[in-house]
Amino acid sequence: MKKQCGKQSLIFTNPPGIRAWASIVGKKEGQGPLGPKFDTVEEDDYFGKNTWEEAESALQTRLLAKVLHKAERKSEDIRYLFAGDLLGQDIATSFGVKEFQIPLFCVYGACSTVGEALGLGAMTVAAGFADEVVALTSSHFASAERQFRTPLEYAGQRPLSATWTVTGGGAFLLTEKSEDVGITGMTTGCIVDYGVRDSMNMGAAMAPAAAALIAANLKDFGRKPEDYDRIVTGDLGAVGKRLLLELLLKQGIDISQQHEDCGMKMYDSPEQGTGSGGSGCGCAASVLAAHYLPKVQAGDLKRMLFVPTGALLSTVSFNEGRSVPGIAHGVVIESFRKI
Amino acid sequence: MKKQCGKQSLIFTNPPGIRAWASIVGKKEGQGPLGPKFDTVEEDDYFGKNTWEEAESALQTRLLAKVLHKAERKSEDIRYLFAGDLLGQDIATSFGVKEFQIPLFCVYGACSTVGEALGLGAMTVAAGFADEVVALTSSHFASAERQFRTPLEYAGQRPLSATWTVTGGGAFLLTEKSEDVGITGMTTGCIVDYGVRDSMNMGAAMAPAAAALIAANLKDFGRKPEDYDRIVTGDLGAVGKRLLLELLLKQGIDISQQHEDCGMKMYDSPEQGTGSGGSGCGCAASVLAAHYLPKVQAGDLKRMLFVPTGALLSTVSFNEGRSVPGIAHGVVIESFRKI
Repeated sequence: MKKQCGKQSLIFTNPPGIRAWASIVGKKEGQGPLGPKFDTVEEDDYFGKNTWEEAESALQTRLLAKVLHKAERKSEDIRYLFAGDLLGQDIATSFGVKEFQIPLFCVYGACSTVGEALGLGAMTVAAGFADEVVALTSSHFASAERQFRTPLEYAGQRPLSATWTVTGGGAFLLTEKSEDVGITGMTTGCIVDYGVRDSMNMGAAMAPAAAALIAANLKDFGRKPEDYDRIVTGDLGAVGKRLLLELLLKQGIDISQQHEDCGMKMYDSPEQGTGSGGSGCGCAASVLAAHYLPKVQAGDLKRMLFVPTGALLSTVSFNEGRSVPGIAHGVVIESFRKI
Repeated sequence: MKKQCGKQSLIFTNPPGIRAWASIVGKKEGQGPLGPKFDTVEEDDYFGKNTWEEAESALQTRLLAKVLHKAERKSEDIRYLFAGDLLGQDIATSFGVKEFQIPLFCVYGACSTVGEALGLGAMTVAAGFADEVVALTSSHFASAERQFRTPLEYAGQRPLSATWTVTGGGAFLLTEKSEDVGITGMTTGCIVDYGVRDSMNMGAAMAPAAAALIAANLKDFGRKPEDYDRIVTGDLGAVGKRLLLELLLKQGIDISQQHEDCGMKMYDSPEQGTGSGGSGCGCAASVLAAHYLPKVQAGDLKRMLFVPTGALLSTVSFNEGRSVPGIAHGVVIESFRKI
């Protein structure tokens, strides 16, 4: 029998509030069904810069400025920044946030990064180590293609199981104060490796990690799927979603009524030619900010489990014939709106 | 005037103890002056594996097993693992730690990673979110050369300012219990970018970040350099050290009596042909574990400031002509030995 992941969950007795959130996406994402919900749709995929990597850094710069503006805060009000991206050595973050001069914890969780950043940020605020922190993450289609697959110039064809890396991101300002939206708990993932070796099928690599995390969350909190209005994964896509539901059903857990996937929300597939759905750190982050948090704020969703998943893929390890392990980071988000 | 980094320091009123630490290094490191102090010197740089990346993962696996063994703990006793490495997508960590099934926060701070991991780990324990956590980091000369410079097979020549990436790493088990060695505070860095563009002179890229962090720590804690028995940087090397001392002297801070650099401790330069000194996540981590913590445990050092620094270098950003920004993460380590 395989070793079980250790104790994974925390409950916050004084839930950190999410005071403000921001989302910025690229042109293609703006043309999708959520288009009108994002704070900004940038028509220029270069974000006014010369390289894809600089473009992604500019995206992080704008996201951080936007969330500070929406929260009516200055950078010096923010105690820590928890941020990351998909690129080697987290360069989108390093170059994107440096002008703000906020003490930085750079994290890496592949596409689960927004969950890791929100979790660590919430822990820091809940512990009283910070009044306010920001969690920030991004991805960019073109910088990710160069990093993980083939440069765009090769015009390689993509199988239908492939997801489409979202150009976009989200930023979240967490505060010790009570807000309409708060983080009441978290469940941290272990690495789950089912031995998937197909770099064009990230959904299959990540679904086992999502399934393990959701099962652990329900067990740790003593909840059933219906105790959540939504259980939202990051970017499993259509292929990964099917696998997730199957894996959980085998354990007697049916989340078919609650489950949604940010990657499947992002685009009109197949019209937009995005295969199995959207992916990337920026997918879950921008959809959480643009689509879900407003619903929680309005009280339309009382409680959701947000479970972005990451495929720990590197071209180096992949080319050496190794598998693509997955990880998931879960955050429980609740409505505190006074009616 | 340049924007100042925000509020950077935390004091722990209940300092987390460091219950155990482990260090493993490669053959060349074992031949250096600290050789006899490491827990293990591995003669096979492949660590019994087929690739350099798998070798580094094997190093992390052994480090984690070693620190658990020394602390008389099992993996299920550990609430969280804070770990990272230098490679793209932190693959040494992903593959190295997965069998232990400890909930994982993967971090990236280049060579400052051990400071970031120790800091976040200490916060988590001090907040009461965990009884025990492990901080873990590694580097490997050959996987780093492939990642950042040129594959070994090219036999490229190296300038004297270049540092030598250490094959090695350290693991640290932090506990809520009082131990002979504890973490009493931390200072978290902002990104410092002096516009250095020389990938063979990481010391110069990182020294400004170290200087800024040390100055902030002294100011925040109301201390003078002599309030520390040692102020220890990670891997500035001889070139970076000179710059660090100069930068601080300009601010009226003289740390020449207290300062030591792990990179300069690691090898016999120039006999070992290691240029300006050792570098890499594993340099600071293994030297802290093998050389400094035993001195703190014995009470020979009462208080030290440990400041590993990272050069946020990516081949992609570097080849696009961008600078190498630096970051530093400071941890205050004190002796609690009862005499």
